[in-house]
Amino acid sequence: MIYNDALNDIIENVKKTTETITDENVSKMTKIIEEVESIFIMGLGRSGLVAKAFAMRLMHLGLNVYVVGETTTPAITDKDCLIAISGSGETSYIISTTGIAKNIGSKIIAITSYPDSTLAQRSDLVLQLQGRTKIDSEPNYARRQISGLHQSLSPMGTIFEISALIFLDSIIAQMMQDLEQTEKDLKARHTVLE
Amino acid sequence: MIYNDALNDIIENVKKTTETITDENVSKMTKIIEEVESIFIMGLGRSGLVAKAFAMRLMHLGLNVYVVGETTTPAITDKDCLIAISGSGETSYIISTTGIAKNIGSKIIAITSYPDSTLAQRSDLVLQLQGRTKIDSEPNYARRQISGLHQSLSPMGTIFEISALIFLDSIIAQMMQDLEQTEKDLKARHTVLE
Amino acid sequence: MIYNDALNDIIENVKKTTETITDENVSKMTKIIEEVESIFIMGLGRSGLVAKAFAMRLMHLGLNVYVVGETTTPAITDKDCLIAISGSGETSYIISTTGIAKNIGSKIIAITSYPDSTLAQRSDLVLQLQGRTKIDSEPNYARRQISGLHQSLSPMGTIFEISALIFLDSIIAQMMQDLEQTEKDLKARHTVLE
Amino acid sequence: MIYNDALNDIIENVKKTTETITDENVSKMTKIIEEVESIFIMGLGRSGLVAKAFAMRLMHLGLNVYVVGETTTPAITDKDCLIAISGSGETSYIISTTGIAKNIGSKIIAITSYPDSTLAQRSDLVLQLQGRTKIDSEPNYARRQISGLHQSLSPMGTIFEISALIFLDSIIAQMMQDLEQTEKDLKARHTVLE
Repeated sequence: MIYNDALNDIIENVKKTTETITDENVSKMTKIIEEVESIFIMGLGRSGLVAKAFAMRLMHLGLNVYVVGETTTPAITDKDCLIAISGSGETSYIISTTGIAKNIGSKIIAITSYPDSTLAQRSDLVLQLQGRTKIDSEPNYARRQISGLHQSLSPMGTIFEISALIFLDSIIAQMMQDLEQTEKDLKARHTVLE
Repeated sequence: MIYNDALNDIIENVKKTTETITDENVSKMTKIIEEVESIFIMGLGRSGLVAKAFAMRLMHLGLNVYVVGETTTPAITDKDCLIAISGSGETSYIISTTGIAKNIGSKIIAITSYPDSTLAQRSDLVLQLQGRTKIDSEPNYARRQISGLHQSLSPMGTIFEISALIFLDSIIAQMMQDLEQTEKDLKARHTVLE
Repeated sequence: MIYNDALNDIIENVKKTTETITDENVSKMTKIIEEVESIFIMGLGRSGLVAKAFAMRLMHLGLNVYVVGETTTPAITDKDCLIAISGSGETSYIISTTGIAKNIGSKIIAITSYPDSTLAQRSDLVLQLQGRTKIDSEPNYARRQISGLHQSLSPMGTIFEISALIFLDSIIAQMMQDLEQTEKDLKARHTVLE
Repeated sequence: MIYNDALNDIIENVKKTTETITDENVSKMTKIIEEVESIFIMGLGRSGLVAKAFAMRLMHLGLNVYVVGETTTPAITDKDCLIAISGSGETSYIISTTGIAKNIGSKIIAITSYPDSTLAQRSDLVLQLQGRTKIDSEPNYARRQISGLHQSLSPMGTIFEISALIFLDSIIAQMMQDLEQTEKDLKARHTVLE
């Protein structure tokens, strides 16, 4: 069953993809997040959903966090950071938005597959999740076709998105220790209105 | 053209609908909003969009405000208020959510057409926007049919939703004065990331 | 009470603002909407909420309608139209998005205060809601200050946003007649999962 | 570094969690999805983000899919299915919503950790992702405290949510084959307006 191949393929790829993150960069990232006044997070499409999943946990940790585009998100300042999640690092809306934030003096953290992308180049810190993204999917697909594998097992940004989610949830575990927050503390901040 | 009849009909109905709000209730509402720690706002469907439009302006005023269901909305406490917008006052999700908030000890403000509704009865303050809502639309429709008007000029909750938006934007004008906030102050808090 | 002044001021301004829409443009707009395969709608901030309120009613009318940025919105084609709501007609994300849609061959409808704006100039049809928007608010504010009115009664895009909502709800009334849809038909399509 | 422990811990737990899904249930699930007229998807909090990530891919596959609560989601019928994602299977809004859908005659698919939960019991098909969810987190947390592990490495529903995302992306791979859809087909339906 293709289902089982895909499941194994995704887990193996996620393992490899997250290997490119160094301990040093994890420390730099948590340091920025813990030192700024407010954290702004953004992403488009499925990367935007990963951004929101991370934002929710940062709120549970007791930090000031906002998702770009949500109703009550205020103006960003030079005391804040903007975390942008984009596999290609070239999504047009991300580029224009991080440009504005950079001019204001906010710190920019990029989560991307491409350390040479426009997004990465303007960022104070780049977390690289190597691997297949929208940009290189066409040739991969062609190779699969030739080799007899007629379907991609993880279309478009799938591996990047899942890897980003797992990477960010591991960052949360790190920050729970750094900020001396237990699961009980997090649960106390979880919305009760659902 | 039906378009012009509808435009006039909406404006006339909005005028009448907002007449049921007393100065006393306006004062009570702004007092609660200005005294609580955080304001939570909710509504479903188009009433939910009105709720968000109001929440955005409260953020521009510099208040702590959250939309129920958005990503970084934390747990509500007994120092907060929950403003619920519901024409019928019987929307099931609104009823269960305000029930939870009431048990926690949060103040509840209802914006509804029905002062006898379940929502209104459990609220600390009821702002009544009289007029046509989902509940009474069926008989109204029948009457229109009989009288030869084959179409409603403002289907379902239209009048309630527009009236609620205009009412709440007038509350914002009142609070700008109360809190000594100028338009310049509001603009300074407006998101720059778009 | 400033509240009452604001309420009257908003209603009066909305009346004036919607006067700039001609019957001819209403007919052109409903014709485009009724002839395309799918309708895409967008706006940012409070204009985005107005866009969603209109989209919901178009769905109730039985049309194929999508909000740009929502989860299941597909690729736009040259058989579709994109309706963009922007007071200034210069919002950066709106400009880049309508540019893409225009290249694809989609029809563009602009709802804006500025017929000379970048958005208006690239649109197949411009619905102008004259009046105060973000662009001219600074001088207006200054004039109010001089004349002794220390507060704006409708900060930033308030008048534009409310006028757009009422204008679009009047378009819905027109289309109910054009498409022979009764309120009962609309209600049958209203979500039941709330 | 806790970060690395968490990363490994999450990947190991996800592997175990997805083992409870049988090939038979995968086939049943894809069969329902491929046979209904429209697919409705829902979840709250981070489960809601997973629901949206899955909905986006089903749209890319060319299916009619709606997220409960989004702007243009129509009324569900007895020709549709509702997929509900809830770790505990007891989230109040999920219970009331699936109740309404069941009465209408829609097929219900549950993705949950608890086959005895209220959600599971009313579902036509239950996909069980065993493991830690909100319900059992309190005792687990206590055990960790006793054993000297002062922090959970994956607070609250983390493992369930990530497992659900990977499980659902594997379902997409299966359906690409079933429906003879290549990555190129999926990309052609991906939004271009970002």
